[in-house]
Amino acid sequence: MIDKIEEAPYAVGVDLGGTNTALALVDRRGNIMARDFFPTATDGFNRWVKILGEHVEDLLRGVDRADVAGVGIGAPCANTATGMVSGATNLNWLFPAPLAAEVEHVTGLHAAIGNDANVAAIGEMAYGAARGMKNFIVLTLGTGVGAGVVIDGHLLSGAGGYAGELGHVRFAFAADRVCSCGRLGCLETVASAKGVVKTALSMLDSQPDKVSLLRDVDRGRLTPRHVTEAAELGDAIAREVYEFTGNCIGEACASFAAFADPEAIIFFGGVAKAGEWILQPARRAFKESALHLYADRVRLIPSELSDNDAALLGAAALVAI
Amino acid sequence: MIDKIEEAPYAVGVDLGGTNTALALVDRRGNIMARDFFPTATDGFNRWVKILGEHVEDLLRGVDRADVAGVGIGAPCANTATGMVSGATNLNWLFPAPLAAEVEHVTGLHAAIGNDANVAAIGEMAYGAARGMKNFIVLTLGTGVGAGVVIDGHLLSGAGGYAGELGHVRFAFAADRVCSCGRLGCLETVASAKGVVKTALSMLDSQPDKVSLLRDVDRGRLTPRHVTEAAELGDAIAREVYEFTGNCIGEACASFAAFADPEAIIFFGGVAKAGEWILQPARRAFKESALHLYADRVRLIPSELSDNDAALLGAAALVAI
Repeated sequence: MIDKIEEAPYAVGVDLGGTNTALALVDRRGNIMARDFFPTATDGFNRWVKILGEHVEDLLRGVDRADVAGVGIGAPCANTATGMVSGATNLNWLFPAPLAAEVEHVTGLHAAIGNDANVAAIGEMAYGAARGMKNFIVLTLGTGVGAGVVIDGHLLSGAGGYAGELGHVRFAFAADRVCSCGRLGCLETVASAKGVVKTALSMLDSQPDKVSLLRDVDRGRLTPRHVTEAAELGDAIAREVYEFTGNCIGEACASFAAFADPEAIIFFGGVAKAGEWILQPARRAFKESALHLYADRVRLIPSELSDNDAALLGAAALVAI
Repeated sequence: MIDKIEEAPYAVGVDLGGTNTALALVDRRGNIMARDFFPTATDGFNRWVKILGEHVEDLLRGVDRADVAGVGIGAPCANTATGMVSGATNLNWLFPAPLAAEVEHVTGLHAAIGNDANVAAIGEMAYGAARGMKNFIVLTLGTGVGAGVVIDGHLLSGAGGYAGELGHVRFAFAADRVCSCGRLGCLETVASAKGVVKTALSMLDSQPDKVSLLRDVDRGRLTPRHVTEAAELGDAIAREVYEFTGNCIGEACASFAAFADPEAIIFFGGVAKAGEWILQPARRAFKESALHLYADRVRLIPSELSDNDAALLGAAALVAI
């Protein structure tokens, strides 16, 4: 294992996606100094690492290696504790991949990996809404629901690297919804993009006489973005959808607060873009539902990572702080 | 603040109760070398600290101060993060008391404080069921329900010192029960001593024709101990009470596992003395309810702290490890 260079002015962030791999040179304030990308090779892990090595080499041309803290990589199914990626169905890598170790080998720089929720949490701490905080939770509300839990400035990983699966905590409000994990009642069934769409469709169906802009969208193509746009245009059902979603999230946050006593719970990801439509009912439900110790102290706030570059910045932050 | 003496062979443990204060000199293996107690003075904090100082002085006669890691104190309403005790109604201390600081002042030794759940968790790590573990949760099932959460070998305290209030996480299985905190649905309403009694009384009432040993006990005097004794004698209602209690606890543990990914969840306190009557249904419910990542890995096990001295040993452990 190669040591991180402490207090180095730069870090490399890598966002490993199913289609493309993006990388960037990031300074300590979260400014992107240079960027690059390449198609994520579909012919296996070893080939991908080799190509990444070449692109990092290019990116760092003219930069002193001693000024680079390391390479942080956001990857699906990444285990921060072991540095391994395994079971990432989008990547077509046949075996568990020693991602951190091999990136160190090919770049000669310290490497660290994290899943999207880890990366979001560390990104918020370095450059976003959690600057200066030591104890907070980032809830990622996207295709799935995940969480990065930061305790005393460190990412909670747990005994096996699987801590913070807050999307799969089960609640009464979702008791009748089946989750992708096969169980009933997970937060993800309500607070993910799919969950919001399911809520919208069921509200449209249960109030067939109520006018709604959402009825103009093909049922199979409905997304949270449609719901947000409709809510902004005054659509009653769209607003009701987020009222329900926010209520559920607020109630879930009351449980999470009792566990971790965080300074804040920060909302990140596609569904979180609904902003105040979700935040207001969430805050109200949190105050009603949380133990008084937390109700007035824990802040529920939106992400402050700039949208397009959040994954790159978060990845860089894995080695920058 | 006085520094702890690392690797010192002895530590002093203090158990501050509403009636008596017990103290002991404990070695690194958890053997009690000497013990003492005095009535917890009802005439205020300053007087109590002075008397404690004298008793510690006596206890350490003939022991080199350099061999004593410090004084660990288990106290109601203790905040590990600040070293303060406030709002402990049993103690008759009028103002928030700087317990750790004043004990350091009077003894000249490093001092640390913790509530009963903190003390139980650190005690299990030093001398009990969590020896060698770095990530685990101790659930204290007593008059109330609390938790000590240990992450990477450190007690989780959170932003304000209020982390681990797992007795006040709310669940559907308790939706109709009012908690001492004023809210509905807290785990404490089912898994505390009062909760077990409530379950027993409601099962006795709902099955008036069913014979039960528990009907011989005055309703106002029923305790979990009666239920355990009856269960051991084959009483069907008593066993049903623990079947329900264990089920609820197992389901709650599935949520807690998703948060912290612990190696084990350890049950401590009066209600936990029901042993396998609660543990078996809890394990079954946990397996059914937890995400597959945790279902086969996280162990649900009983405390291994020797019963009478658990509070003293746990208090000593606050400074011993």
